[in-house]
Amino acid sequence: MFQVRTDLAVEARELYKENKRQEIPGVEVEKSQVEDAIEITRVKIIDEKGSQLMGRPKGSYITIEARGLKSADADLKDSVSKVMAKELVRLLPKKKGLSTFVVGLGNWDVTPDALGPEVVSKILVTRHLFKMYKKTEDPTMSSVSAITPGVMGTTGIETSDIIQGIIQKSKPDLVIAIDALASRKMERVSTTIQISTTGISPGSGVGNLRKQLNEETLGVPVIAIGVPTVVDAATMTNDTISMVIKALKSHSKKGSDFFNILDDMKDNEKYALIKEVLEPYGANVIVTTKEIDKIIIDISQIIANGINIALHPGIDLKDVNRYIN
Amino acid sequence: MFQVRTDLAVEARELYKENKRQEIPGVEVEKSQVEDAIEITRVKIIDEKGSQLMGRPKGSYITIEARGLKSADADLKDSVSKVMAKELVRLLPKKKGLSTFVVGLGNWDVTPDALGPEVVSKILVTRHLFKMYKKTEDPTMSSVSAITPGVMGTTGIETSDIIQGIIQKSKPDLVIAIDALASRKMERVSTTIQISTTGISPGSGVGNLRKQLNEETLGVPVIAIGVPTVVDAATMTNDTISMVIKALKSHSKKGSDFFNILDDMKDNEKYALIKEVLEPYGANVIVTTKEIDKIIIDISQIIANGINIALHPGIDLKDVNRYIN
Amino acid sequence: MFQVRTDLAVEARELYKENKRQEIPGVEVEKSQVEDAIEITRVKIIDEKGSQLMGRPKGSYITIEARGLKSADADLKDSVSKVMAKELVRLLPKKKGLSTFVVGLGNWDVTPDALGPEVVSKILVTRHLFKMYKKTEDPTMSSVSAITPGVMGTTGIETSDIIQGIIQKSKPDLVIAIDALASRKMERVSTTIQISTTGISPGSGVGNLRKQLNEETLGVPVIAIGVPTVVDAATMTNDTISMVIKALKSHSKKGSDFFNILDDMKDNEKYALIKEVLEPYGANVIVTTKEIDKIIIDISQIIANGINIALHPGIDLKDVNRYIN
Amino acid sequence: MFQVRTDLAVEARELYKENKRQEIPGVEVEKSQVEDAIEITRVKIIDEKGSQLMGRPKGSYITIEARGLKSADADLKDSVSKVMAKELVRLLPKKKGLSTFVVGLGNWDVTPDALGPEVVSKILVTRHLFKMYKKTEDPTMSSVSAITPGVMGTTGIETSDIIQGIIQKSKPDLVIAIDALASRKMERVSTTIQISTTGISPGSGVGNLRKQLNEETLGVPVIAIGVPTVVDAATMTNDTISMVIKALKSHSKKGSDFFNILDDMKDNEKYALIKEVLEPYGANVIVTTKEIDKIIIDISQIIANGINIALHPGIDLKDVNRYIN
Repeated sequence: MFQVRTDLAVEARELYKENKRQEIPGVEVEKSQVEDAIEITRVKIIDEKGSQLMGRPKGSYITIEARGLKSADADLKDSVSKVMAKELVRLLPKKKGLSTFVVGLGNWDVTPDALGPEVVSKILVTRHLFKMYKKTEDPTMSSVSAITPGVMGTTGIETSDIIQGIIQKSKPDLVIAIDALASRKMERVSTTIQISTTGISPGSGVGNLRKQLNEETLGVPVIAIGVPTVVDAATMTNDTISMVIKALKSHSKKGSDFFNILDDMKDNEKYALIKEVLEPYGANVIVTTKEIDKIIIDISQIIANGINIALHPGIDLKDVNRYIN
Repeated sequence: MFQVRTDLAVEARELYKENKRQEIPGVEVEKSQVEDAIEITRVKIIDEKGSQLMGRPKGSYITIEARGLKSADADLKDSVSKVMAKELVRLLPKKKGLSTFVVGLGNWDVTPDALGPEVVSKILVTRHLFKMYKKTEDPTMSSVSAITPGVMGTTGIETSDIIQGIIQKSKPDLVIAIDALASRKMERVSTTIQISTTGISPGSGVGNLRKQLNEETLGVPVIAIGVPTVVDAATMTNDTISMVIKALKSHSKKGSDFFNILDDMKDNEKYALIKEVLEPYGANVIVTTKEIDKIIIDISQIIANGINIALHPGIDLKDVNRYIN
Repeated sequence: MFQVRTDLAVEARELYKENKRQEIPGVEVEKSQVEDAIEITRVKIIDEKGSQLMGRPKGSYITIEARGLKSADADLKDSVSKVMAKELVRLLPKKKGLSTFVVGLGNWDVTPDALGPEVVSKILVTRHLFKMYKKTEDPTMSSVSAITPGVMGTTGIETSDIIQGIIQKSKPDLVIAIDALASRKMERVSTTIQISTTGISPGSGVGNLRKQLNEETLGVPVIAIGVPTVVDAATMTNDTISMVIKALKSHSKKGSDFFNILDDMKDNEKYALIKEVLEPYGANVIVTTKEIDKIIIDISQIIANGINIALHPGIDLKDVNRYIN
Repeated sequence: MFQVRTDLAVEARELYKENKRQEIPGVEVEKSQVEDAIEITRVKIIDEKGSQLMGRPKGSYITIEARGLKSADADLKDSVSKVMAKELVRLLPKKKGLSTFVVGLGNWDVTPDALGPEVVSKILVTRHLFKMYKKTEDPTMSSVSAITPGVMGTTGIETSDIIQGIIQKSKPDLVIAIDALASRKMERVSTTIQISTTGISPGSGVGNLRKQLNEETLGVPVIAIGVPTVVDAATMTNDTISMVIKALKSHSKKGSDFFNILDDMKDNEKYALIKEVLEPYGANVIVTTKEIDKIIIDISQIIANGINIALHPGIDLKDVNRYIN
């Protein structure tokens, strides 16, 4: 059967509600608003049941949404960075002299997949300075290392192996992994940031990672930060078909053959149609915006700023906006 | 009413045939095959009637299609360059000492729109050498100049004004304008090259040009070369809806209410649906492939090679493949 | 005879003083200090004599020097942008609804020559908006267009022809031309901005322009903004030889054969030596810094900011630092 | 005392001969010519004495020089790739199912240091295919993985630690490390390829690596491939000073005060002069060519081709020239 493709916990929940018309069990949801331009949704998967229904590991999924990010409002960008930093700080291990390893997943040669590498290029890296001056902590900054491991197609090596190898040598306390995501709705592309404590799962993201990246596989806590940059074409097709059927139903009496045809069409045949629509399109078809190149640059700045001010107490946004290009 | 968006003459014709179930009047079509991997379709709009039905000016539209271009078959790439060069040579003004001005339309900061600039970066430019050595003709090469004028959003100036201004100074005999196009079908993205003698029309291409570029506006003949790099999201949605309706019709007796509902749904309501589907997606939604960055590089090489060997008799493909990166 | 290569008026004057041990006639010089981190030198060539001795047209040459720019001090960068904007405003034609055309000279594929194109990519372009809304003036912004014409080697067309052609179509009141320069001293590379009212002369800059760009050739006033990004290798060699000779002289009695040999060596033989040193190095040898890539990005931001706040009264530095990446 | 900076064994030997006017002991040298456009010099350091005098570990240093590479002769480029491949094959461990890890050292944001990353981007990576199809060997290709580890300033981690970590996970049989070098003579920049079996030493290369990369530190054999992309400014200054002194000596009688002054100037004072010349230039001053951006692209293609045909018996140059952009 066709599965709507989404990397966002909020959407997985949405889908459940749409189909089952009830709140999803084993999942706690809490919404809040910042300056009424930014909406924060905290989805917590608390048990196995919830995990299975959501198709995601137990843990926290924080979603920061700001529709306004589509326009070039620099103040809103700064607010989002600050909100993100605040959420991040809350998730950081409470440890003096924390050492963080930032990993930019994805392929820098594939624009919608280049978010991770772009963010890493804007991270204030300090680990080598701590080594050089033989310091373990500092009031203004913490030890940060960063890498863009590339993708298996260009390195020939599992991304998880590269990261594990570097971790064994550099011994960070924490990994922050950034990845481009697929959303179910175009309106969330580039306007939504998901922060989760559960790592990154295979096949998620734009660039199909194949192995888990989480505390279990890496040996240190993993905070995953993702932003949708594309919508899966099959997902958009599925939404379109559902809308056509809904529209037609409104023309027909409940119980009529017509209505019934529409009803049992729903699943099996619907999937055949999706395939029929997309077959000629070949694999790797994505729905995105013409502005994706610029969007990747803008949103990566927002996220890098958020990480930089969360990890380096001594610097503020005014600095990072100007120091890091 | 909804208009399927396509910049390809072959598709405009396809659409007419699908709806009217007849060949389009005022248009001559001729197909041929090269090494059964490459299909050439020559669409000739011969009168006003045809021009109006096709929504395009009178003239020749040559389409070179090679599905195999999706894979990295270097030999096929070379064949396509040669086929393209042959068609191009046939369209060149018969003049000793021909001087050609190659214009790469589109925005190099927008990947699917960067085809033109990419091609220009690979063109063998020689005009300054002819000037330097005070030559007017040469057996091995012809005078070629090239520019990427940018887009109005980044220059503040109508692209047509920039090109006209440069033409008045550099006095070429011919303009070859390269632009990224929108196709109706994903399978044509990056596998189809359209060469036309009618210039480039407003609103066509990925990067919405606003004024005509043709012999009338520029004062010299214009050969337009385009390759589809995206599919308009509305077009894909429209195709999807049509397929759903077709599928449902197959379940219902001709003449039944159901069948009729489906029939009169066709146009008015269909358009409303398309809008409903795409509204949340905002403007500038495109359907493309994850490989678009690499595709732009590959296809621009094919086209630049075709132009280079067409304009410079003295060089062959072996040279350009190695000299120009 | 060997000519020290410099595009900076302040250095042309320095050289004269070093050789002739007197102030250069026909030239007025005025120095001032800003926040003692920025030094402004106003060189005014007032007559033919001065023009000939300086090897430059009559007019004003304003040099803004800030050694601190080598380090990443964001506050100093902002101060320099503001100082530059102030000087620029003083040079702008006093006209309501001024329309400016910014030209980024140089080759974006040659790092030390890419300053102009980099600046243009950060300019706030507004001309098309004025056209769209049929406005001629606005309290917050002025009409700005911008282009990177490329270099003759890649376009096949004289850069001056391209610019003239576009000016004839777009009819600006003013041209601001940005170009990368060669300095005599490495310490001035990336720390010095020269603003002049005399346009740009052939052979100056890193990318050897061949025709004048000034009010006479373009028909509108031209403000040239340049930053040294390289030192000519011959110049550095010449300085080295002079130092060796000076050092040796300090060992020998005035009038001794030794001293005399050193003295008449000075010119003729010195030049032979320079050639001998550089011959194996081939043409196009430059002395620059390993950081040149980053420097081009930083300094282009400073200059673009200066131009943006000078031409758009409504925006301040805080905005441009964040809006334009 | 001043040390001429060179990463080329052939130059270290040159220097010794210039100063001591004798062949260097403990070193075997063998020259050969290919198509009289390519010169191969094999320097073998055979004992401790030689190692100490050369300031390099014992082992083989193969230098491939082709002055013609300065011009864009595609046939010569291909010949150099083939010659290089042949030398490389001779150095490969004789092992069925050899697995090679290619490492591109240097900083891709610093043009003259970007050689390594550029080469890696053109390497045919296959290791993941061997894993996917569970093969250990193949007649047409061998298992190749590749990475660009970045530099400590951008990752915060010792490059050697990153490489060691990845090696422990991916278990290659061989490392091929590519790095940009500093030459003593501009004529060797971009025209010389050095292949050595001794790994890469600290402080060599343009991008100052800090730890050894060799069989001892990495646990597998290391083949280092380097190309000079810059000349150290101090080296050029030193050469200049020597030439001045040589010129002056030719004017003076052996034994005269003058001659003696020149003689004992030689070392101590010479160094003071070099410092005096370069002080104002600050650190990181390099001498290079204006074409360095293009040169990095061209030479990286030559080297990548050489590696690709050496490691993948099934492909020939025609393929790689067209498949890999």
